[in-house]
Amino acid sequence: MLIVPEREIANLMTREAAFEAVEKVFASMAAGKAKNFPVVREAIGHAEALYGFKSGFDKATLDLGLKSGGYWPGNAAKGLTNHQSTIFLFEADTGKCRAIVGGNLLTALRTAAAAAVSVAHLARQDAKVLGIVGAGHQAAFQLRAVARQRKFERVVAWNRSAEKLDSLAKVAEELGLPFESVSLDDLAARSDVIVTITSSFKPLLMSDGVRPGTHIACMGTDTKGKQEVDVALVARARLFTDEVAQSISIGECQHAIAAGTVAEADIRELGAVVNGTDAGRVSNDYITLFDGTGVGLQDLAVASSVVKLAIENGVAIDVDF
Amino acid sequence: MLIVPEREIANLMTREAAFEAVEKVFASMAAGKAKNFPVVREAIGHAEALYGFKSGFDKATLDLGLKSGGYWPGNAAKGLTNHQSTIFLFEADTGKCRAIVGGNLLTALRTAAAAAVSVAHLARQDAKVLGIVGAGHQAAFQLRAVARQRKFERVVAWNRSAEKLDSLAKVAEELGLPFESVSLDDLAARSDVIVTITSSFKPLLMSDGVRPGTHIACMGTDTKGKQEVDVALVARARLFTDEVAQSISIGECQHAIAAGTVAEADIRELGAVVNGTDAGRVSNDYITLFDGTGVGLQDLAVASSVVKLAIENGVAIDVDF
Repeated sequence: MLIVPEREIANLMTREAAFEAVEKVFASMAAGKAKNFPVVREAIGHAEALYGFKSGFDKATLDLGLKSGGYWPGNAAKGLTNHQSTIFLFEADTGKCRAIVGGNLLTALRTAAAAAVSVAHLARQDAKVLGIVGAGHQAAFQLRAVARQRKFERVVAWNRSAEKLDSLAKVAEELGLPFESVSLDDLAARSDVIVTITSSFKPLLMSDGVRPGTHIACMGTDTKGKQEVDVALVARARLFTDEVAQSISIGECQHAIAAGTVAEADIRELGAVVNGTDAGRVSNDYITLFDGTGVGLQDLAVASSVVKLAIENGVAIDVDF
Repeated sequence: MLIVPEREIANLMTREAAFEAVEKVFASMAAGKAKNFPVVREAIGHAEALYGFKSGFDKATLDLGLKSGGYWPGNAAKGLTNHQSTIFLFEADTGKCRAIVGGNLLTALRTAAAAAVSVAHLARQDAKVLGIVGAGHQAAFQLRAVARQRKFERVVAWNRSAEKLDSLAKVAEELGLPFESVSLDDLAARSDVIVTITSSFKPLLMSDGVRPGTHIACMGTDTKGKQEVDVALVARARLFTDEVAQSISIGECQHAIAAGTVAEADIRELGAVVNGTDAGRVSNDYITLFDGTGVGLQDLAVASSVVKLAIENGVAIDVDF
């Protein structure tokens, strides 16, 4: 059994490897070769924690396993990350536990990689301005991953507390991109690609201001009740997601589905675009929207990647189990 | 993070420790302090494997985690156990992975311990004859665990292929108990305690032959469709289980519930008897029946026990994770 501790992930995993792993598993899902199993998520009634599992199996890669962990709001005060995850991989041929991988950084990388895959396959080729809504821990990962997918010339960003945008500004600077803190209206009017990455329970991005041709990656909504964009904007867009079942129940599309302005059949799998079985953007005048809900198979895919890299680099800890 | 490999479990875990852990967690469940989370179980479409998780949290002990694994029918040909499980424990205060424990032997021990707890709390004190229905891998564990709970004077056993009873006969000999291979009718008529541990899909033990005062532990039925005893026998007995929700859906009681001869409210938690909030057997003339379905909390309880023992014995492998 191989172990790859959390502290090794930053040295091993690249954004390119995460992109490749996530793109490939989305393709497997859309081709019917990979399946996510039901999600378990429980308020455990201790330490205000939410605990659970996301799991699945990809026949194409034989990646089998789960990510387990959750949200412990008191961790930060103890010097720990509030989100704690560990990824467990099993041998598909025997059911033996194959590897245990720290899942904290990988979760951020696989989420950002999903947005990046959506931009690579759905944004207009001539996209110049990248808009980021939100400035939390995940926003910097999103910016780094998405910035490479088009020849962006500028980053515009909005956050409820504008002063929190400083760290995002630094990332843009590293990437050599001019950065502006703007209003939501300005962001909508000026961006060719917009990433929303907040924990909002009310729409932030309204339909009226968004221009035809924009690609929007909604990455924050992963729970019943959360919402980042206007229902009218969802109804207006050509819709894509990682997994339709999650999109309509806990993703950004839940509200438009509830309102009846969008049907389940209107939502396409991003993997189908990767596979070439869906035409994707179709026209430069369409708005495309990717509803990124986060699936267990993404976790398994990046964990499997990192195990390979850990073996190559001689840092996987081998325990006779 | 501590690791206790499968090969260490036999040296560390005792039947007494398994009994104590299972009795305690049944008590926690009945007191509303411990909860099993939804079970995930999937045919993965590879190697004919069934894969999944059983998980839960016990506030009394802070045991949090899951057992993951499943059934790989091709393993035996590779020299591996068909049932493969690994148990993962998490820190309830932080969500960090605390321990990884081989789960194959522990699964057998915790299942046998559940039957033993039922016999300890529900069988007549003067029980003399122990009947075992089934002679598979689990039957020997059942015999060893249950034999200690009363002053048994004899073991009678039945199996579809009588020649397979030889290994069970050897266990009885080790325990100093006379052993007889008998017909099902004889077994029913002579036993004070009966353990059924088969994969049957048809009732084996019929109501007519079973005497008042008998305690029956039905340990084989853990799936929709499986059945070990006559619906009329279930309707006649005072019913106990590990978890009511599983008993009525995948346990032995599923058939009597479907037939309408038993209501959900007729099924009591064995933990309530442990806690003294249920009177248990009540009368020496009653038939008591324990429907052992197997819950994730049992796995966590025995794994937590074994981790403690591994630390005490200096065999827990500590990995800086």
